[in-house]
Amino acid sequence: MQFSTTDTEILRKIIFHRRDVRGNRFLSTPVSSAVMDQLLFAFEHAPSVGYSQPWQLIVIEKETTKQAVKNIFTQSNDRERAHFNSDKASQYQRLKLEGIVEAPINIAVFYTPPEQPVLGQTMMPEAGLYSVVCGIQNMWLMARALNIGMGWVSILEPEKVKEVLHVPSQLQLVAYLCIGYVSNFSELPELELLGWERRKDQTEFIHHETFKQP
Amino acid sequence: MQFSTTDTEILRKIIFHRRDVRGNRFLSTPVSSAVMDQLLFAFEHAPSVGYSQPWQLIVIEKETTKQAVKNIFTQSNDRERAHFNSDKASQYQRLKLEGIVEAPINIAVFYTPPEQPVLGQTMMPEAGLYSVVCGIQNMWLMARALNIGMGWVSILEPEKVKEVLHVPSQLQLVAYLCIGYVSNFSELPELELLGWERRKDQTEFIHHETFKQP
Repeated sequence: MQFSTTDTEILRKIIFHRRDVRGNRFLSTPVSSAVMDQLLFAFEHAPSVGYSQPWQLIVIEKETTKQAVKNIFTQSNDRERAHFNSDKASQYQRLKLEGIVEAPINIAVFYTPPEQPVLGQTMMPEAGLYSVVCGIQNMWLMARALNIGMGWVSILEPEKVKEVLHVPSQLQLVAYLCIGYVSNFSELPELELLGWERRKDQTEFIHHETFKQP
Repeated sequence: MQFSTTDTEILRKIIFHRRDVRGNRFLSTPVSSAVMDQLLFAFEHAPSVGYSQPWQLIVIEKETTKQAVKNIFTQSNDRERAHFNSDKASQYQRLKLEGIVEAPINIAVFYTPPEQPVLGQTMMPEAGLYSVVCGIQNMWLMARALNIGMGWVSILEPEKVKEVLHVPSQLQLVAYLCIGYVSNFSELPELELLGWERRKDQTEFIHHETFKQP
């Protein structure tokens, strides 16, 4: 299969317009099962080390489950905010950082460590986790192509989330995702718009042949 | 920006036809700087925790550098093969698992741990590594949309690769990538075609509301 320059341009736009979406933008519009199928198709066609497909996903729609996870966020967020100094802490306070209750669909994504050696994973054990992340990024781009927002919540104590979802101890929480239609997509990443961080220039992270201090 | 069902279908095809490419398929055809710009554009527009963009990339084209990395692969591969029992080991022996020397471009991708607390990373420190992986997956899809192959080599002792590339100790090797035009893309993942592993069914990894043993 050969792709055309038009196809390349469409992918470029999907990548460029993908956003991390929070609760101030999610709509309650239901997400159809056909759309869910597209999202899961994107996930399961991610690369995985040794073709191990080491992922487990829990799709959450019930209010009570979402509320239990939201409570974990609230506690975790208080702890996280304490890491920032007073200037950043007051800006932090005003940020909306998740859309757990607002998004019609939540997906908790886990990594299952292998029971047998996996091809390509013995020198770099983290490669299994990386496979799961490739699935998440595939799904994020597919969501954007379907004009659906996704937000990745990482301000959560993983063990507490596992408890709420009855997840066996050996599994590792990689991401908690919020998914749904949106009022609009932000033009730029929100943390760039708000001046929290600036976009880096390629000269700060691209090297040739060997590493040179920028 | 609204995407159409045609756009969604194109992304679905790019995701479905992306392959992990090894040295038996790479061509020596040069990769233009315009193409490199597209690949790096895709990488740098990945999501990153707290907009931290915690990545460093080294683009490698010199034969001597590639050969030094290939030597690390050869040693690492002997050690990795020893993890497999006799049936799998003889199949392993026949697999071509990298294209370091054959691919015109290699890219070594690193994660830089933060010096200050990063928004969204205090509860889940691995989120920084995950950002780097999102960049890699963006670039992998862009490569496929440009009809270019990419292979991810994880059978490498990371510290030895860092030594060859003069990388500071605090950086972590996430991936070593081989990039170039290809003779053809395999119809299915090679490890599926060769019967090393089978594709999982969604019933094996999708759960609803809470985790249930499959």
